Amino acid sequence: MNVVTPKIRMGFVGGGEGAFIGKAHRQAAGLDGHFELVCGAFSRDARNNQDSGAALGLPASRCYNDWQHMLAAERALPADQRMELLVIVTPNHLHAPIASQALSAGFHVFSEKPAALNLAELLALKAVLKSSDRLYGLAHTYLGYPMVWQARKMVRTGVIGAVRKVMVEYPQGWLSRDVAGQGNKQAGWRDQPEQSGLGGCIGDIGTHAFSLAEFVADQPIEQICATLGVHIAGRQLDDDAAMLFMMAAGATGVLIASQVCAGEENPLKIRIYGDKGGLEWRQEEPSSLIHRSLDQPMRILRSGVGQPWLCEAATRRMRLPAGHPEGYLEAMANLYGDFASAIRNQVEGHDAPGVPGIDVGLRGMAFIEAAIANHRGDAKWTALVCHP
Amino acid sequence: MNVVTPKIRMGFVGGGEGAFIGKAHRQAAGLDGHFELVCGAFSRDARNNQDSGAALGLPASRCYNDWQHMLAAERALPADQRMELLVIVTPNHLHAPIASQALSAGFHVFSEKPAALNLAELLALKAVLKSSDRLYGLAHTYLGYPMVWQARKMVRTGVIGAVRKVMVEYPQGWLSRDVAGQGNKQAGWRDQPEQSGLGGCIGDIGTHAFSLAEFVADQPIEQICATLGVHIAGRQLDDDAAMLFMMAAGATGVLIASQVCAGEENPLKIRIYGDKGGLEWRQEEPSSLIHRSLDQPMRILRSGVGQPWLCEAATRRMRLPAGHPEGYLEAMANLYGDFASAIRNQVEGHDAPGVPGIDVGLRGMAFIEAAIANHRGDAKWTALVCHP
Amino acid sequence: MNVVTPKIRMGFVGGGEGAFIGKAHRQAAGLDGHFELVCGAFSRDARNNQDSGAALGLPASRCYNDWQHMLAAERALPADQRMELLVIVTPNHLHAPIASQALSAGFHVFSEKPAALNLAELLALKAVLKSSDRLYGLAHTYLGYPMVWQARKMVRTGVIGAVRKVMVEYPQGWLSRDVAGQGNKQAGWRDQPEQSGLGGCIGDIGTHAFSLAEFVADQPIEQICATLGVHIAGRQLDDDAAMLFMMAAGATGVLIASQVCAGEENPLKIRIYGDKGGLEWRQEEPSSLIHRSLDQPMRILRSGVGQPWLCEAATRRMRLPAGHPEGYLEAMANLYGDFASAIRNQVEGHDAPGVPGIDVGLRGMAFIEAAIANHRGDAKWTALVCHP
Amino acid sequence: MNVVTPKIRMGFVGGGEGAFIGKAHRQAAGLDGHFELVCGAFSRDARNNQDSGAALGLPASRCYNDWQHMLAAERALPADQRMELLVIVTPNHLHAPIASQALSAGFHVFSEKPAALNLAELLALKAVLKSSDRLYGLAHTYLGYPMVWQARKMVRTGVIGAVRKVMVEYPQGWLSRDVAGQGNKQAGWRDQPEQSGLGGCIGDIGTHAFSLAEFVADQPIEQICATLGVHIAGRQLDDDAAMLFMMAAGATGVLIASQVCAGEENPLKIRIYGDKGGLEWRQEEPSSLIHRSLDQPMRILRSGVGQPWLCEAATRRMRLPAGHPEGYLEAMANLYGDFASAIRNQVEGHDAPGVPGIDVGLRGMAFIEAAIANHRGDAKWTALVCHP
Repeated sequence: MNVVTPKIRMGFVGGGEGAFIGKAHRQAAGLDGHFELVCGAFSRDARNNQDSGAALGLPASRCYNDWQHMLAAERALPADQRMELLVIVTPNHLHAPIASQALSAGFHVFSEKPAALNLAELLALKAVLKSSDRLYGLAHTYLGYPMVWQARKMVRTGVIGAVRKVMVEYPQGWLSRDVAGQGNKQAGWRDQPEQSGLGGCIGDIGTHAFSLAEFVADQPIEQICATLGVHIAGRQLDDDAAMLFMMAAGATGVLIASQVCAGEENPLKIRIYGDKGGLEWRQEEPSSLIHRSLDQPMRILRSGVGQPWLCEAATRRMRLPAGHPEGYLEAMANLYGDFASAIRNQVEGHDAPGVPGIDVGLRGMAFIEAAIANHRGDAKWTALVCHP
Repeated sequence: MNVVTPKIRMGFVGGGEGAFIGKAHRQAAGLDGHFELVCGAFSRDARNNQDSGAALGLPASRCYNDWQHMLAAERALPADQRMELLVIVTPNHLHAPIASQALSAGFHVFSEKPAALNLAELLALKAVLKSSDRLYGLAHTYLGYPMVWQARKMVRTGVIGAVRKVMVEYPQGWLSRDVAGQGNKQAGWRDQPEQSGLGGCIGDIGTHAFSLAEFVADQPIEQICATLGVHIAGRQLDDDAAMLFMMAAGATGVLIASQVCAGEENPLKIRIYGDKGGLEWRQEEPSSLIHRSLDQPMRILRSGVGQPWLCEAATRRMRLPAGHPEGYLEAMANLYGDFASAIRNQVEGHDAPGVPGIDVGLRGMAFIEAAIANHRGDAKWTALVCHP
Repeated sequence: MNVVTPKIRMGFVGGGEGAFIGKAHRQAAGLDGHFELVCGAFSRDARNNQDSGAALGLPASRCYNDWQHMLAAERALPADQRMELLVIVTPNHLHAPIASQALSAGFHVFSEKPAALNLAELLALKAVLKSSDRLYGLAHTYLGYPMVWQARKMVRTGVIGAVRKVMVEYPQGWLSRDVAGQGNKQAGWRDQPEQSGLGGCIGDIGTHAFSLAEFVADQPIEQICATLGVHIAGRQLDDDAAMLFMMAAGATGVLIASQVCAGEENPLKIRIYGDKGGLEWRQEEPSSLIHRSLDQPMRILRSGVGQPWLCEAATRRMRLPAGHPEGYLEAMANLYGDFASAIRNQVEGHDAPGVPGIDVGLRGMAFIEAAIANHRGDAKWTALVCHP
Repeated sequence: MNVVTPKIRMGFVGGGEGAFIGKAHRQAAGLDGHFELVCGAFSRDARNNQDSGAALGLPASRCYNDWQHMLAAERALPADQRMELLVIVTPNHLHAPIASQALSAGFHVFSEKPAALNLAELLALKAVLKSSDRLYGLAHTYLGYPMVWQARKMVRTGVIGAVRKVMVEYPQGWLSRDVAGQGNKQAGWRDQPEQSGLGGCIGDIGTHAFSLAEFVADQPIEQICATLGVHIAGRQLDDDAAMLFMMAAGATGVLIASQVCAGEENPLKIRIYGDKGGLEWRQEEPSSLIHRSLDQPMRILRSGVGQPWLCEAATRRMRLPAGHPEGYLEAMANLYGDFASAIRNQVEGHDAPGVPGIDVGLRGMAFIEAAIANHRGDAKWTALVCHP
């Protein structure tokens, strides 16, 4: 007799109607069929909350007015009914408080980034996580792209030789105007330090560029020299950042993150060069990984199941044959897939293999703090302080 | 009190473990959360069938050994439990028989293409459909891409003027070798006329190119002049096709479909030129639509919600802001989304708006027949016979 | 004592002020320093002729009112002063008459294409050439691109295996409107059969696509099935052509040439597929040659001196290291360079190695005639008649 | 009677057989027919010198053993025979000494960059220039590209609004290995400070990136924060540089120049963003200028005569219709063309309009010095000192 693989019961905080990222999480989670949405506290607006839940097929009884009630109510349900995984897609300042309580209440947590508003909060969350027996994941979606894993593998196996240079950039244009002042809700809370954290652009997208660089180069950034900018009168947080950096194994690099590159969409891009060759990957065309070499013509490795020259870590993150584009939701679905596997396999520890965890959050926080400190101070270089 | 939107209960014929397209359908259907998989006859291999169902979270009671039993058993279930929509992802020769019986049994049908093996079968299916009160859809996935809708809209509103030229091409390379002889299951049945139909490449991908051309140009192809080829000894069906064509409103064009373009992946591409400008779209980079013009520099319209220059039909088929790639599964999910809307809204007639239906199947069949007839005969031009 | 390499003395017929192609020839000839302009009959407009010559640094005595006088006067000059090479850049109908007389008068000839207006004229020219001891070259500029030679070499050495498919296209947009009616001089004479020949688009650019296909595939096209079009009221000659073709060694293909693809510039492109891989080259980005393969990732071979993976025939047609673009004038300069070498080395026979000659002209004429005959007739296929 | 436009008589120092850049200069100068090579001191190797001259068609009497003799001998020739313009294509340390003496001797000078080895030398050269009545030009070839002028024009006319961000990069890979140690002559002298100057990569290509940024943004860089690197044991000068910068009108930016980006060819690239839009240009595809905007879809402006949307300054630097690629030699020929016009028109002052002059050299020197100083010191920012 076959054992039926049950779906993992999932609840949401945030992501009511009109919220982009919450919907993206549900789509990503739905793609591979590992999850079943069972409850939510989608919005603090009671009407939006109920409407959102109803539209998603949830009974009113599982649409909670706030996350505190949700945690309590779900905990009280029979084990085979209650939520197993909580997805947090609220503004930033709620990430850590909700995650801490959810972990303590016995729920796995998959949280939008950043993990917390500041370092203190983040360390507290980590302590809670360590004392729980639950898993914690962070939605660094770009680390779910298969060709990012392929790049990392090629770096680790020496295909490009010893890494010398890393250039990572993330130019967006959507804050070129005062969109917050014009009513854009997402731009609005992102510019409130008490909701967004210390960093604006540096936190919102700089951390994506940062974690991508560390992930692909497979070595930490140790020192940075940064400059931040604000380009709209009245804007509180940075909308632009650029920095030089030095990595642990001797590579140097440049990181650019900006939200005032007018007209740019979302072309996160990394180039990494060793003494034998280089790699280039660009999120807007994620199926292609360019490999340059000193000894042979440029190659373009293309995503697609069944390509024998792709590594296993990349291939198992693909669904389709070459030439059938997969994109952002598929990348996020890869994080959900790995999270599902970890839950089902009752992985020990607090990290789901393949899913960015609390330590990626800590690195990102150290990065934001160092960037701001360096920008404000006179010193040329500032070390990233790695927290325990 | 809110009315909960229930998920539509969906069953599968075909798509057991190892079958690419069945899994893609489930992923596409899962993406936007409109459907719930409730049953299946995934494989004629009983073990595969049970394993597939269990892995998908189905109880053994809803994993049926064959589709005939499934139709009967599901029909016998209470209305609030039984399957509403049947998805058909079997080899081609079963599409029409299963669809006919499913429609007759009161189920909506979403079928992989082709709709049937030959014209007689297709006309019979259409008759069944007309006498039922159910909806029928055909998985012409490429017609689900948002920028294809944008292109069609620009053609229809005269942005490029009166259409003169259409060039559509679909070069693949996967049949460059005798992969069927080497055990590739998908290549195997595709080369059996009794399972695949009269056309090889012309049916498998030529029809995609054909329907894309008619869809974007918004006019039918009337005459073709074709040549087909076979490039592997022992291969029964064509693996390569090229043709000239004439359209109803005076445009002429070229259609290329080949599966022996070694090294090519899946670059279905259309270019269409009018007396004012031209458009170009390529499936491997589906987010970009190139617009050339006699009066202004080349523009690239990029996919993404919130771009004011995109039409409503395109925008509502997108999920993400510009720069966040969406791909093949999202395009297929758009067909599922429109099918779900039609079911929920109890659309009258047999076509779900936005979803290719039986007439697209008929056009494709006329195309295959004309191409083969023209190839075999001496006449330069052969008319496509439009069936009622 | 070193022997000084003298420059080759060159004269022009045509190419007065305002003529695009004549200037391009002078620039191409000037690039590598092999030639010295010594005389010309640049225009039948006496003023333009004198002005053009003066602007080019010629004394009035070497600016002739017509080509007949030029041939006679130059012939009468001392051997170390008189023109050695005549470049013909007039409208088409003058190519053969001037070339014949120039060859007979003892001058080498480098002619714009086509070699002649029709087959009779061309055969007569060939007879004259055979009875002379001079060299004759035809400005099929696209055959001067280094990566075209690289592609041909890879085909000849079996890198892509046995050739199965050739797709060549040349879509332009500049005749989308009635530019001749609006006073465009180049469009004007091109639409006069008595000046342009039997073919419009098929002759003007179709022959470029045709000769590129034969050159790269290294086999002749034997049969074609064609359709031609005219899209402007009152236009006499075709502005659009498409055809299927069969080659001598079994390959099949498609050729598209059009001048009504609104917004297109000059993207002549060839793709060629064998049983092991395929190649793609596009004139608008001439430094890149894409190589796809069944057994390895896609490669992009890039132009540039010193790339060990490029063949000698390609490398010696480059001037600069990789990454320093070379373009159309450099390609034409390669024809001039090979012509100069042949003159200096007193090559026997009538063809300058590396330079398209009279037989390329004959192939092109057979192509034009077959295309027109096929278009007008009922037969599906028309053979290209190869003239002696 | 027409006045014949005489060619400008040109001599070379450097550029004997085997020297890449000298040949490129001759090709560029030859392209548009403005110049006639009359003499040279091509190599200090007497044999190479004579061979080079003979191959170029020069009599032995005009092939001089050294530049000192050349200046003296040419000066002694009749005015209608002697060299008018001296082109300097030697290693860097000779640029200023030769230029100074040539200007003093009454010759116009077109020099490879850098103008001098160090600031003192450069200021001395400028003094000589000011006291002469001759013209001086510097081969900043990338400033000769038409679409660079188009970009500058669009910036100056406010198309992208107030400039906020400039990102300029120049990654090469050719020094990834110890090519100097392996006998590469060009790499060899470039690593000798006494021949090359204080900067390695920062001088060789960093100055190209720098001058491109200032030219397109139309404002000077005022402050930089830089890091330099050396990646080969024994290499004396930097092979890699990255910096943050601040411009005079408030824009900030990043400049990357590296010669250890293994596999990269020559992709000098600039992106510039204002409050309304952005521009992107890349030397490896110089015919395209990408224009992004907040208010309309991305546009690609393509090079080509006759495009009404291109500015006059760009159009007059093009030779061919759109779709006929022009490249590096054409860009350099544009500098030569403007230099020829200035000579013929007897422009007053010491700069040829359109040609980078001594002040571009001074800016570059200030840039190199500031970069090195900042790299060596502790201060975060270093001001570029603008010399008189």
